[in-house]
Amino acid sequence: MTALNTDNMGRFAPVVEGCDRKGDVILVCDHASNTFPQPWGSLGLTEDQCRAHIAWDPGALGLMRGLAARLDCACVAATVSRLIYDCNRAPDMPGAMPTRSEVHDVPGNAAISPSERLARTRAVYLPFQTALHDLIAERVALGRRPAIITIHSFTPVYFGQPRQVEFGVIHDADPRLAQAILAEAEARTPLTCGLNAPYSAADDVTHTLRLQATPYGLPNAMLEIRNDLIATPEAEDRMAAQLAPAIAAALARVQES
Amino acid sequence: MTALNTDNMGRFAPVVEGCDRKGDVILVCDHASNTFPQPWGSLGLTEDQCRAHIAWDPGALGLMRGLAARLDCACVAATVSRLIYDCNRAPDMPGAMPTRSEVHDVPGNAAISPSERLARTRAVYLPFQTALHDLIAERVALGRRPAIITIHSFTPVYFGQPRQVEFGVIHDADPRLAQAILAEAEARTPLTCGLNAPYSAADDVTHTLRLQATPYGLPNAMLEIRNDLIATPEAEDRMAAQLAPAIAAALARVQES
Repeated sequence: MTALNTDNMGRFAPVVEGCDRKGDVILVCDHASNTFPQPWGSLGLTEDQCRAHIAWDPGALGLMRGLAARLDCACVAATVSRLIYDCNRAPDMPGAMPTRSEVHDVPGNAAISPSERLARTRAVYLPFQTALHDLIAERVALGRRPAIITIHSFTPVYFGQPRQVEFGVIHDADPRLAQAILAEAEARTPLTCGLNAPYSAADDVTHTLRLQATPYGLPNAMLEIRNDLIATPEAEDRMAAQLAPAIAAALARVQES
Repeated sequence: MTALNTDNMGRFAPVVEGCDRKGDVILVCDHASNTFPQPWGSLGLTEDQCRAHIAWDPGALGLMRGLAARLDCACVAATVSRLIYDCNRAPDMPGAMPTRSEVHDVPGNAAISPSERLARTRAVYLPFQTALHDLIAERVALGRRPAIITIHSFTPVYFGQPRQVEFGVIHDADPRLAQAILAEAEARTPLTCGLNAPYSAADDVTHTLRLQATPYGLPNAMLEIRNDLIATPEAEDRMAAQLAPAIAAALARVQES
């Protein structure tokens, strides 16, 4: 879990770890948390719904920390459920505060007023993106060129359909790092891999990359791991051990080119 | 002039005006100020150099305020000279803290250490861009789609060469608003106009647009006015009166399309 960081303005800062590490990567977990703090609470969802994939990306935080240790790099994690505010969505996207996720209605999001949209944007989205931007711009000022990699997980069954892909790599405008990670993962791991699977930038899932990496021309990619493969701390760590060498090789390839 | 806004962390926030206005435009003046505050001081420049176009964009702030009043919109202005930190440049661009501007060496920038680059990035660039991002994201949260227009001025003689263009409109990835403003200015004013003149995005002059407008898909453009045409408060106001209807018509055209 990530501990809640609230300041006296009611803003939920993300957790930033490993700032003193030397690796030129920043890992980001937009959907790290299924915490439903006040003033919102559980949005009318059941305890089971608050534990399900609609509330967060199960396993993604542990996987990210395992990757950050192996890649010797910083990482940033949201501390609030994506159903309160999904930090990987701009404030005008319906998915930022979704009224429905997969087959589940979200009662507390059914009729959000403009002032409530503004309040959640200020409380969750802006502190998250500002902290990430500070971290990136400070490294760029020091002459470093961090790759920005977001870490997500997806449910093995979606709208009743099983998903065959185990590891998806998604790109935004610049496909280089995503293509290199895909090639290295196919060569080095037994995972069933897919490019722009189980969804793509056309589904509005690359907002954080677009906001943070593209303006600075930094290499970037979004990784999606099927959550049944990272369902325990041990499984998260095994997956991190499998993927870290593929990511490192891909970074070396992109940095050479 | 813009008053200096310094907090207890030594950060120079921009001036933000007209937040309660209704127009869906945000005007930005990256180079509004030729103030050289401590701890940097005048960087070894003469008083004449500190008043010259290398230190700021003369006339741009007054023009922006005249446009903001007529377009009934918010505006954001930097409070520190571009020679200390040029907010329209990423921290790794040479122009962010230039060692030379046109024919003038900048002694205080001749040998900037990495820690000094980081300190100026934290003190000037990050507060400016964060305040602008907050303003934009908050409007987007309220369902508004502000156009982002940066206001600059350029010197009539550069490296000894006179410049014929009087009004330049520069675009980044999305040319729609720039093309519309150019067409309206050509139709409605006697100004000698140019697209991507006196320079273009290839010269790294569209950083603020790329960082702030493009990720949200907001219409955007950079305006450049030859500074001999806005050399007095009266001239700034006349130019604002000339350009405001062209900008308003262009915005209406882009919003319809």
